[in-house]
Amino acid sequence: MRMYDLIMKKKHGQSLTDEEIRFLVNGYTKGEIPDYQMSAFLMAVCFQGMDEAETLSLTMAMAESGEMLDLSAIHGMKADKHSTGGVGDKTSLILGPMVASLDVPVAKMSGRGLGHTGGTIDKLESFPGFSVAISNEKFIENVNRMKLAIIGQTAELAPADKMLYALRDVTATVDQLSLIASSIMSKKLAAGSDVIVLDVKAGSGAFMKTYEDARKLAETMVKIGNGASRKTYGVISDMNQPLGFAVGNILEVKEAIGALNGRAPEDLNDACMTLASYMLLGAGRVKEIAEARELLAETVRSGAALLKLAEFVEAQGGDKRYVYEPDRFPKANLIYEVKAQADGYISAMNTEEIGLTSLVLGGGRETKESEIDLTVGIVFEKKIGAKVRVGDTIAVLHANDKEKLSAATKRLQNALTIGQTPVTPVPHILGVVEQ
Amino acid sequence: MRMYDLIMKKKHGQSLTDEEIRFLVNGYTKGEIPDYQMSAFLMAVCFQGMDEAETLSLTMAMAESGEMLDLSAIHGMKADKHSTGGVGDKTSLILGPMVASLDVPVAKMSGRGLGHTGGTIDKLESFPGFSVAISNEKFIENVNRMKLAIIGQTAELAPADKMLYALRDVTATVDQLSLIASSIMSKKLAAGSDVIVLDVKAGSGAFMKTYEDARKLAETMVKIGNGASRKTYGVISDMNQPLGFAVGNILEVKEAIGALNGRAPEDLNDACMTLASYMLLGAGRVKEIAEARELLAETVRSGAALLKLAEFVEAQGGDKRYVYEPDRFPKANLIYEVKAQADGYISAMNTEEIGLTSLVLGGGRETKESEIDLTVGIVFEKKIGAKVRVGDTIAVLHANDKEKLSAATKRLQNALTIGQTPVTPVPHILGVVEQ
Repeated sequence: MRMYDLIMKKKHGQSLTDEEIRFLVNGYTKGEIPDYQMSAFLMAVCFQGMDEAETLSLTMAMAESGEMLDLSAIHGMKADKHSTGGVGDKTSLILGPMVASLDVPVAKMSGRGLGHTGGTIDKLESFPGFSVAISNEKFIENVNRMKLAIIGQTAELAPADKMLYALRDVTATVDQLSLIASSIMSKKLAAGSDVIVLDVKAGSGAFMKTYEDARKLAETMVKIGNGASRKTYGVISDMNQPLGFAVGNILEVKEAIGALNGRAPEDLNDACMTLASYMLLGAGRVKEIAEARELLAETVRSGAALLKLAEFVEAQGGDKRYVYEPDRFPKANLIYEVKAQADGYISAMNTEEIGLTSLVLGGGRETKESEIDLTVGIVFEKKIGAKVRVGDTIAVLHANDKEKLSAATKRLQNALTIGQTPVTPVPHILGVVEQ
Repeated sequence: MRMYDLIMKKKHGQSLTDEEIRFLVNGYTKGEIPDYQMSAFLMAVCFQGMDEAETLSLTMAMAESGEMLDLSAIHGMKADKHSTGGVGDKTSLILGPMVASLDVPVAKMSGRGLGHTGGTIDKLESFPGFSVAISNEKFIENVNRMKLAIIGQTAELAPADKMLYALRDVTATVDQLSLIASSIMSKKLAAGSDVIVLDVKAGSGAFMKTYEDARKLAETMVKIGNGASRKTYGVISDMNQPLGFAVGNILEVKEAIGALNGRAPEDLNDACMTLASYMLLGAGRVKEIAEARELLAETVRSGAALLKLAEFVEAQGGDKRYVYEPDRFPKANLIYEVKAQADGYISAMNTEEIGLTSLVLGGGRETKESEIDLTVGIVFEKKIGAKVRVGDTIAVLHANDKEKLSAATKRLQNALTIGQTPVTPVPHILGVVEQ
C-alpha cells in the first residue's frame, strides 16, 4: 500500500477501505508518512469528503493510536458529556453532581480552556487544593465509591488526532465535517465511557455558526458513537449568547453552585436538565426523558446534588466549605458596570467577542502556557430580548487591572447590539439527535 | 502575508494576486514555507484551478527563481522548440540544422531522456566526442557564428519548478493544467529564446492521452508565452504511434541523417516542416507558413541543412564524418525480427509500452543515474494502418543481451494490436494554436 495511491483515490472521490485508513493513520503517527503527503490528503478530503464508514474508520484508528482508557473496573454504565466549546458553559459542574447523585457513574476526562472558551478544570481549580492530577487507580476508585471523578486529559490519548489536528491547523484543513467529528469522537472513544452526550453549540460564540452546520456535526458524531457501540446523543444548543449570566472561572463556579441550590437561570437549567436526562437515559437509569427530568429536579430540590459536589471536591483535595459558603472565593478588585448606550432591545451579542473580553481581563489563555486570573470575568444582568434604556446596567465587569478593564469595556460594548424592535429570544435547546 | 491565508483563499476558489503568488514561490524556494503547506495549496489548486493571470504569475515567479539565461548577446530573434515528450522523437536533430541553415539562431537547452521518452542530448552523444558541456560564452559564440548550439540543462534554471515538481510528484498533484503548463514554460522562459514553438503530444505515448487535453495544455502554454512577450505557438501532434520508424539513440540519429538527406518518413517530415515553419515565422524570417515550407524543403534539397548538422557536431567536439558515413556508428550484436501473429491491420500501438521496450533493451534510463546503451532500439517496418499477414516483419529489435531481447520481444508483441477491419491512420499534425 502506498500513501500516494490513497491521496489519488481520495482526490478522485473514491472511498478508502478501513485497512487503507488505518495504514494512513498508523503510518502518519509512526512518522512513516510525511506531513506533506498527509496535508495533500487532508485537502483532498476537504473537497471530496468522507462517507460514514470512512469517518468511523478514521475515528477508530485515531482513538486506538494511543492509550484507550480502560474503565471496565467501574461498575455500571459510565456516562460522559462533551461540549464543542462555548462561552459561560459551566454545565459539567452542575450535571456531573446531579447525574452522580442518581447513581450513574460519571468518569470524566476534561481539558483546560483555550482561546475564547473556558475549561472545566480551570473552574474546578477555583476550589483551593482541588486537583485533577490523580492516578488512574484513584480515579476509578473514586468513581466506584461516589460515582464522580474528573481527571486531566493525558497526552497519550489519541496521539494521532493531536498530530493531525496540529497539521490541519496550519494547512487550512480544519473546517471539514468528518475531520472535525472524528477528531472530537476519537478522544471521547479513547476516554472509555459507555454513554456519550454531545453538546453541539451553534451561534456566534461557537465553532459552528449555524444551526444547520451544528446539526450535521451532531448527526455525524452520533453515527460515529453508535458505530463504535457507545450510546450517543447529540444536543444542539444555542451559543448566540453566553450560557447563564456569568463568564469567568470563579464567577461561573458561583453560578453553578447557585444552580445546584435551585437558582439556575432558565437557559442554564434547560441545558443541564436536557444533557443530564440523556445521560440517565443512555445509562438505562430511566426509561424516558420525562422520568429523568423529574429525578433530576428532585435531586436538586433535596440537596443531594449539592452534597455530591461537596463530596467530589473534597475527594480530589479541594476545600468543600466553598461549596456551602461561596463568599469565601476571592474577588476581583475592580468592579465596573457596562451600561446601555441607547434605548431599545438587546438584539445580538457577539459571543466569541464576549469570550475574548473575559480573556482580555486575564480570565482565559491565549496560549497553552498562559497563566489565568480566576477572579475576573463578566456577570450579565441582561441578555438577548431584554428591553433597556440608556444608562441601564447590562453587565458587570470584574477586573484586577485598569488597562485591561478599559480594553475589555470597549470590547464588550462593541459585542452588544441594541435594536429598536422587540426581539423574542430563541430557546436554548435547538434540537436533539438520537438516531 | 501568511501562507495559511493563501491556502484558504485558493481553497475557497478565489484568485491570488501576482504579489501573493510571488510570496508563495519565493517563500517555498527559500525554505520559509514548509512542504506541508505547499502540498495543501497544490491540492487546492487541483480542485479550484488557476486563472490565466495566476498561471502567468506562477510561471514568471518560477522562471525568475533562479538564473535567467541571457541570450541578448546573440544577434537576431532566437527560436526554440520544446516537445512535451514522445517516443521516436528526433525532430530537434533535424529542424535545428534546417532552421539554423536559414539564418535563424537556435540556442537550445536540452535534457536527457528519462522513463519511456528519449532525450536529444543522449542522441547527440552518439557522435564520438560530442559534448553539451560547453561554457555559456562558447554557447553564445557558436550561435552567433553558425546559428546553432545545444547546451545541457543547468541546475540553476527555475529551481522553484524543480522543487515544486518533486513535491507534486509525491503528493498526487501532477495532473493539473496550470501546474503542468507553468512547469514547462518556466524553464522555457528562463532559457531565454524569443520564439517558442511547443510540440504538444497527444496519445498513448504521451503525458496527455487525448487531443482535447493536449489542446488545452497547448492553449494554456501559448497564453503564458505570449503573456511573457515571447512569440509562442503550440503544435498538437499525434503520439499514438512512434514518430518515424526508429526508436533508440543511434537508430534515431541515423533516421535523422536520412531525413536531412531527403528521406524522412511522412509523419517525421510533417512534424519537422510544421515545427520549423513556426520557428521561422515567429522569428520574422518569413511572412507566412507556405513560404517557410518552401525554404525548408530547399535547404534539405540543397544539402545546406545536412552541412549545418556536420558543422554543429564538429563545433561541439563531435566527429562529423559520422554525418556523411552513418555506417560508422556502432551496431547492436543481436538483431531480431518481431513478426505479425495474425492476419489483419495494425490498429493500435501502445506507444508508452514501445518506449519502455527500448528502455528494457538498455536504450533508456529508469533513473537519472542509469547508464544507457546507444546502439539498441527498435526499427519499425510497419505502423498503424498497415495490412499484415502472419509472419510479416513488423519491427526489428536491436539488442546486446539475450534476456533483455526476450523481455523486449514479449513487451513489443503485447504493445501491438492487429484488428480485422482496415484502419485509416490519422495525420500526424492534429492542430496548431497560434492565438
